[in-house]
Amino acid sequence: MSLLDRFRNKDRRALSRIISYVENRKDSYQEALANLYPDAGNAYKIGLTGPPGVGKSTLVDRLSENFLQNGGKVGIIAVDPSSPFTGGAFLGDRIRMQRLVGNEDVFIRSMATRGSSGGLAQATKDVSLVYDAFGFDYILIETVGVGQVELDIVDASDSVVVVIVPESGDVIQAMKAGLMEIANIFCINKSDREGADRVLSELNHLLQIQRSKSEWSFPVIPTAAVNNEGIDQLAKAIMQHREYLLESDLFKIHRKQQIRKDIISYLRMMLTGNIEKKLKSADSFDNLLEDIYNGKADPITTAIDIYNKHYSRT
Amino acid sequence: MSLLDRFRNKDRRALSRIISYVENRKDSYQEALANLYPDAGNAYKIGLTGPPGVGKSTLVDRLSENFLQNGGKVGIIAVDPSSPFTGGAFLGDRIRMQRLVGNEDVFIRSMATRGSSGGLAQATKDVSLVYDAFGFDYILIETVGVGQVELDIVDASDSVVVVIVPESGDVIQAMKAGLMEIANIFCINKSDREGADRVLSELNHLLQIQRSKSEWSFPVIPTAAVNNEGIDQLAKAIMQHREYLLESDLFKIHRKQQIRKDIISYLRMMLTGNIEKKLKSADSFDNLLEDIYNGKADPITTAIDIYNKHYSRT
Repeated sequence: MSLLDRFRNKDRRALSRIISYVENRKDSYQEALANLYPDAGNAYKIGLTGPPGVGKSTLVDRLSENFLQNGGKVGIIAVDPSSPFTGGAFLGDRIRMQRLVGNEDVFIRSMATRGSSGGLAQATKDVSLVYDAFGFDYILIETVGVGQVELDIVDASDSVVVVIVPESGDVIQAMKAGLMEIANIFCINKSDREGADRVLSELNHLLQIQRSKSEWSFPVIPTAAVNNEGIDQLAKAIMQHREYLLESDLFKIHRKQQIRKDIISYLRMMLTGNIEKKLKSADSFDNLLEDIYNGKADPITTAIDIYNKHYSRT
Repeated sequence: MSLLDRFRNKDRRALSRIISYVENRKDSYQEALANLYPDAGNAYKIGLTGPPGVGKSTLVDRLSENFLQNGGKVGIIAVDPSSPFTGGAFLGDRIRMQRLVGNEDVFIRSMATRGSSGGLAQATKDVSLVYDAFGFDYILIETVGVGQVELDIVDASDSVVVVIVPESGDVIQAMKAGLMEIANIFCINKSDREGADRVLSELNHLLQIQRSKSEWSFPVIPTAAVNNEGIDQLAKAIMQHREYLLESDLFKIHRKQQIRKDIISYLRMMLTGNIEKKLKSADSFDNLLEDIYNGKADPITTAIDIYNKHYSRT
């Protein structure tokens, strides 16, 4: 049986191999993705983001159990931050998820951001597509809310949950980081800590304008994931957001935007690979670099020349 | 007088306007850069990176004063992290640099990473080029060492200084974050704190292999920037690295690599702008999205088709 056949027969080792294939951009991985595409489109994708140390991994763990108990199959993608300075999901978190590991209805994959930048965002979406085609009902994508990554999660998810903890200034920080704009649901984790009520009212106050402009309620759910408190409510809020999207046609609009971005991203990758190839094959390129280094030419005009010669069509 | 003429007459307001022009990618900014290119190439570019809270801004401040005292003109680019969760250079740090503000021989520009990703890296290099053309002798680029950004600093700098503080595990963290590989010089700031000696010997131990493979000494400089301690030594180490690069031909090799990456980056921007334009003008694109949404086509094959139709040449 071919790898793809075994994948379609729900062979987990085939799933694992195809994910590695796609993640590492092996030759003809694009063909593999194109083959899987018709089987995808049924999974619901949930992104969880927030600052380091708020307990995202534990939340993902508990949410997964909740979905599993309701008969759903769950694929988890944990996007590890590239730099340990930001904290985030490391070995410890993966170990916390160990008890999910034996479960046939769940699959966990960690992806490292180190050195991949834009490439990682697309790789995450591609692995999500593989999960989707394999038949997972829910895909949980966990990323630390630092920099560019939290914006990419909008492109990868149907619902975005922003997680914070009751700490002085955390709401203001979330606002500054642009997390307010991308959240569909807010989760105050570790809500048994002091200050949870204050953060809840701060958030509710800030959300007044957003709520008045939308049919969606932007719920704020207090949880204490380690004690399994509030998980039912969080799962329910996610399902309500799903219904809201489906009823309001926003689901379709959002998915079509994601498809548009996917096409642009794939095109960009093809063109970029092409640039490197074209420059390598140009034997005068080294002379050109020498000229620029010596001030006889400049990189911008050189780029324009290459563009006109190789890419523009009359 | 034209803006460019005023720029060449060392008018700081013209400098400021051209920087904004370049930073915001205004129409024909590429032409402006091409025009400035022949005047550039003389500045020495120093990148400072490290985890949040190690005192990078204060170091930049003191280093600048050191260079100024020796008759050098200094351009500073502070790349602010996009997310306040990671700490880094904020208003407070900018205020700390206030006493440099009145100085005619120094110019400070903050750049925000928010939402710009790859674009920011190029914008930083472009602003650096503007500084260079204006006649600054030293360009100091300060970035927080989180994720992708610290790798970009290698492309923007001649010498990279990695800054850490004496804290438990900081050296291990720096290693994991990939900072060891990119550092030419290490700086242990706040070295009046406990543990500085331990960190110094840890670093020296780790650097044995790197040192044995290179003619460069990878010095570790203890500083206490707020007390102006060790700044002379740090400035001296940077100048020694510069001499090392120039004498070993590595300076030229590295600059040519930077030029190569610049060309690729400009080309990528042109092609990407082009993608958006081409898709906008394709009136059947909406139908295509609808088909993909309904599972009648897939984004990968669509991207390949667009590529073959618009970009590949026979």
